Parts: sequence; structure tokens; C-alpha cells
Amino acid sequence: MTGVAVLGVGTTRFAKQPERTPAELGWEAAAEALADAGVDRVDAVYVGTVFGAPGVAQRALQALGIVEVPIVTIEAACASGTVALHEAREAILSGRYEMVLALGIEQLSTAFAGPIEPEPSDREGRTGLPLPGIYAMSAARYQAVHGVTDAELAAVAVKNSAHGALNPRALRRRGLTEEEILGSPPIADPLTLYQCCSISDAAAAAVVGRATGTAREVEIAGCAFRSGGLWDQRSEHVWGLDIVRDTATAAYEEAAVGPDDADLFEVHDAFTIGEIVTLEALGLAPPGEGARLAPAGHTRLGGPQPVNPSGGLLSRGHPLGATGLAQIAEAVWQLRGEAGERQVDGAQVAVVETMGGGAAGVDGNACVVAVLRV
Amino acid sequence: MTGVAVLGVGTTRFAKQPERTPAELGWEAAAEALADAGVDRVDAVYVGTVFGAPGVAQRALQALGIVEVPIVTIEAACASGTVALHEAREAILSGRYEMVLALGIEQLSTAFAGPIEPEPSDREGRTGLPLPGIYAMSAARYQAVHGVTDAELAAVAVKNSAHGALNPRALRRRGLTEEEILGSPPIADPLTLYQCCSISDAAAAAVVGRATGTAREVEIAGCAFRSGGLWDQRSEHVWGLDIVRDTATAAYEEAAVGPDDADLFEVHDAFTIGEIVTLEALGLAPPGEGARLAPAGHTRLGGPQPVNPSGGLLSRGHPLGATGLAQIAEAVWQLRGEAGERQVDGAQVAVVETMGGGAAGVDGNACVVAVLRV
Repeated sequence: MTGVAVLGVGTTRFAKQPERTPAELGWEAAAEALADAGVDRVDAVYVGTVFGAPGVAQRALQALGIVEVPIVTIEAACASGTVALHEAREAILSGRYEMVLALGIEQLSTAFAGPIEPEPSDREGRTGLPLPGIYAMSAARYQAVHGVTDAELAAVAVKNSAHGALNPRALRRRGLTEEEILGSPPIADPLTLYQCCSISDAAAAAVVGRATGTAREVEIAGCAFRSGGLWDQRSEHVWGLDIVRDTATAAYEEAAVGPDDADLFEVHDAFTIGEIVTLEALGLAPPGEGARLAPAGHTRLGGPQPVNPSGGLLSRGHPLGATGLAQIAEAVWQLRGEAGERQVDGAQVAVVETMGGGAAGVDGNACVVAVLRV
Repeated sequence: MTGVAVLGVGTTRFAKQPERTPAELGWEAAAEALADAGVDRVDAVYVGTVFGAPGVAQRALQALGIVEVPIVTIEAACASGTVALHEAREAILSGRYEMVLALGIEQLSTAFAGPIEPEPSDREGRTGLPLPGIYAMSAARYQAVHGVTDAELAAVAVKNSAHGALNPRALRRRGLTEEEILGSPPIADPLTLYQCCSISDAAAAAVVGRATGTAREVEIAGCAFRSGGLWDQRSEHVWGLDIVRDTATAAYEEAAVGPDDADLFEVHDAFTIGEIVTLEALGLAPPGEGARLAPAGHTRLGGPQPVNPSGGLLSRGHPLGATGLAQIAEAVWQLRGEAGERQVDGAQVAVVETMGGGAAGVDGNACVVAVLRV
């Protein structure tokens, strides 16, 4: 290995924890990642947070003695954490730094009671469409075109809740039945409560450095970052996620792998429909066939290519800036064989995908796809 | 020249303009910078904003057709704009991109009525000290130790207001007398209203690319970025700004210049005392002597080394994320000989310094010093 590797990871638990400060969450995740990597200082820090107050990272890092190094705090919607990872990796590849901390922090429970609302000046904001509504319209259209049932949508949540039940740090730690999912309160038809990710608070971190070939390091074999194109509101291709396809193509190419080579995926299942169309964009199934993957067992733990063994955004939770680095942490634990009850046997290649935004007239503010390998 | 250059700059006017959206401000500055550079697309965008809503840059850039490229939005307190410039330059130096837009956006008038308050969980927040109070305590101590008069403090505002009167885009466009400044309402003793920068709204942008030696380009000969160390509250050295000194040393070294080589400075004069201690940290005067520079005429337009010919934060205004790139724009206009009535004759080297934060237990969240040269 000659590239860049993740040398250590850490996360808090994922929960509503309004009694803690965001800085305390960041401190906990960063401390675990540094201890896991066996280092006590880094040359720079890249931080992902969407609603974190100015200086949140500085507050988190002071108690760890991480001062006097550049700290760059990045907002890239739901992909903020993996954009931080991407920038950290680029800084090492270019030779600027030897050792960098990527840190994601988000406390949503003190900021939002219901769904995160779109910006009032956006087209979506003006028409009163929060994100669940936008995803729901895509889901309804997808179902109509491809003959997909409500039960097939729900199968994603059945699977991810079964995974989340095995993750001691997850927000939702109980396997849900199809009946429970479809019978949960409607949020935006056809999406019910348990088909939507929840508000939560957490932080996650990764120490990134030069790969040297030691046993515990996990290579970042490819990592691509794109922002979206203008959203053509007349298109029939409402769930195409071209940005995900393009970003994945670049990451696969850099890592010299294809989707069939991946032993597991951590992807952006903010809503059940999200996992389905994302897996199509990642190349796991042709358009319209992504909905068959969970019911067929292909993406379950024990199946050929488990998707979201952590429980995903649906069950682990989706504290925006922390999500991408929580996905990275899960991939690292899996590739090291440290994922406990939810271990994917013999995992050697993991793909992480995070998607941010898409409600500002473009089909995504930011998308990152990373290929991790041991 | 073999390094990285600023190829074009743009700014909005600096004013309270709550009727415009932050995205509109960003669009205006970016459009001017792109036109000034003669380009209509870039490979990536780095954006500085402190209180900008998620997606503000994407909204600003859509109308310019800047989509499908990585957009990284950075928060680094008052230095957000110059941190964006720094990251843009590094991305070009490393060969990642050929042409990058650095964009700063801030709309404060819709968010704050009075001073920006410190985070309640900080030591400063718990003791009720907003930033003017912190600077005022430094000013009082500085005066006591060095025998500096109120009139010497005010001389910075006299000078910068005279400069701002010559800047058609400045917030305060009237030269102020010492009497007006010292007689303006007390904010935090010894600082009066006209010794404090004002809330304003603006955006500023710079197109950054490889230097090729064309007439209009301005080389970024050095650019350094540091975050601060822990603040020793027992120290007598309350105005030392070690972070500024260390950052400037690195930038001077990269550019192979010293402070005496600079024909002009744009520095972080959020408060009169700020310009004084910053100029000491930048090497223009020994400790205690920075207060003599303005009264002696050294830093006035027409003097040997004009400081803040734009009017500085005090008169141009200080919309946080936009400030650093507005300083860069002023330096570029000066070095091209396009600064109109406030032109520094024959300027060939300009130094820009931006300081962010410092109220979270460290002596600065971020400091950037850039050396620009023609």
C-alpha cells in the first residue's frame, strides 16, 4: 500500500443527548480515534458540521491538547463528514501534512423538533416541501414506474433495523417488522415514520495518515467528491442520482474496483427509497431492480453484499455532520474484523457513500464515495 | 513567477442590505471576480462564511452555471474568507485543480442587533464578555503599560476613516475627527463606537490559478494559516498575538520578504487596539510602539507603509466571512494600480492578515497571513 490510510476511528453513541455540549461529543469521538490510532497529536484537523456553532471544533479539541494546528471546519450538508475526510486525504496525498484528524460533530436535538426545513428562498422551500416530502414524491413515482410495493420499500427498514439491533451505539436498537414499519405514523406518503431517519446527536472521527502496511490500518483506496448539477424539474429521471453514479465511478476507478468487489456498503439511507436508488447508482442493480435487493436477502447481514451493517442512517441515526465519519468508522471496524455481532465475515473491501443536500435546485450539494480496503 | 496567482477579484458594496439574500451577495461578488479574471468556469470553489445557511454558496453559484464541481464551505471565524483562499491555493499548488474560486459571504444585519456574543459555554461567555469587552480590556492594559493615550488609539480610526472616505464600496464613507471618535458613545472603555467595526453585509471573491506571468495577475507569494494555542489567562502578554507573529513569520519566509518590503497592509482592525497590536506582531514596530505608527503618519495613505487603505474593518465594514477576501481584493486592486483615489503609488508587495476568533480559550481560532506581489 502506498496511499493514505485510516489509522484510527471513534464515535460517540448515536442518541438524543441534548444535555451534552456539541464540543463534548466531538471531544469523545476524537479522543477515541486518537487512542485507536495510538497518536496524541496531528498536523491539521478537518471538521464536518452543518449546524455546529462557530468554534465548536476548537472547543472539542482544546481538551485534547490539539491546538496551534490548522482547523478547517466544513459545511457540505449531510456529506460534511466525508467531505472533511476527503480534504484530509487530499492534504496528505499532496504532502502538506503527515497526520490529520477528520471529525464530524452534530447536535440536532437542541435545534429541531420536526423535519429539517428547506431554505425559504428555494423552490422547494417556497412550495413547502421539506426533505421527507421530496423523497416521498420520488418514492411514489418510483413505485408507479417500476411496480414496486410498499412492502418492498419497507424491506429496507426491516433489514437496517435488524442490523441496528446489533450495534450498541445505534439510536434505534430494535428489529422492526414489516407490519410495524408500514403501520407507523405516515410522514409523507408512501413513507412512514420508520422509513425516515431520526434527529440525533453524535460525533465521529477518523485519524488519517500515510499507509505504511501495518496490520490495523485500512487503506482509503479511492475517494471522490462531486457537487450536483442543476435539477431538471421536467425530467422523468427523478430518482436517478446522477451525482452518486458519477462520484462512484471516479472512486471505483481510483481504487481499481467495481461494485461487485465490495464486501459491504455503508450508504445514505436517510429514507428507505434513498437506499434503493443509491444502490442502483452505485451499480448494484439496474434501474428499478434496486428495490429487489433487500427482499432477496442480497444486502442483509449474511447475504452476499451487506448494506448498512451499522443500521444505516435509518437505525444508527443521522446527525448530519457526524454521519459520514460514522460510516467510515463502521467500514474500518468491519475491515479489521472488529464489528462484533454484526461482523461481515472476511470483509476486505468496503464502499462508503454520503449524499448531501439536493434541495437548492441542484441534484446534490455534495456527494462523497470512498473505497476502503485491507 | 511559478506559483499561484489571483487572476480576478470582485466584491459587493459593504453595507447593511437586509433586503438582499446572502446568495445574491455571493452571486454578485463571484460574477465580478470571474469577469475580472476572464473565465466562466472553475474546477472547485472554497467558500468562507460564519453564519451563512447551509447551501448558501450553492445558491449563489447556480445562477453563474457553476455546478458539478466540488464546493467546500468553510467556517473559521473572522478568517473564514482567507482560510478559503489558503485552501484554494493549496489545492492548486498540489495539482488537484487548475482554477479555483474563493468566495466569502456574510449577512449579519438580519442576524444580530448588537455585538456578536461569545458562546455561553466558554469562559468568556460565562463571564458575560462579548468581543468588544475583551479587546477593551487589552486596550486598557496596553495603555497602562506603554503610556498610550486615548488620542493615540483614536488615531487609527481617524486614519482608517479617511481611507474609507475614498472607497466607494465602504460602509463608513466619511472621515472622522479625533473629537468625533473619542466623543462617540462608549462601547467598552476605552473603546468608543467609532473604534469598533460595524455589522454589515457583503460578499467578496477571488479567482485563483497558476501564475503564468500575464500583466494583470497578482502572485500569492506566501500564504500561511495557523490556529491558536491555549490562552494563558495569567499572562501579562495579553495583546501579544503570538499566533499572528508565527503565521506572519511563515508567510514572510515563503515569500522571502520581510515587513519592511511591504508597500501596504490590509490587517484585522476590528477595533483600534487590534490594528496596533497586529502591526507589532507583523513586525512593523516593537511592542508598545505600534501605537505611534498612525499618529506619526507611517501607516497613512501617502506615508511609507499605508495600512488599511480600503478603510479596513473599521470603515469598509466587517461582514465576517467576506472580510478576508475583501482584503485580498483591495490588495489586488492596489498592486494593479486600480485603486483610484486611494492608490498607493507604485505598490509591488502587499501583506494581508486576518484573525478569527480567540474567545474560546485559545488565542485565535484561525489566522491567515498572505503576501501578494506583482
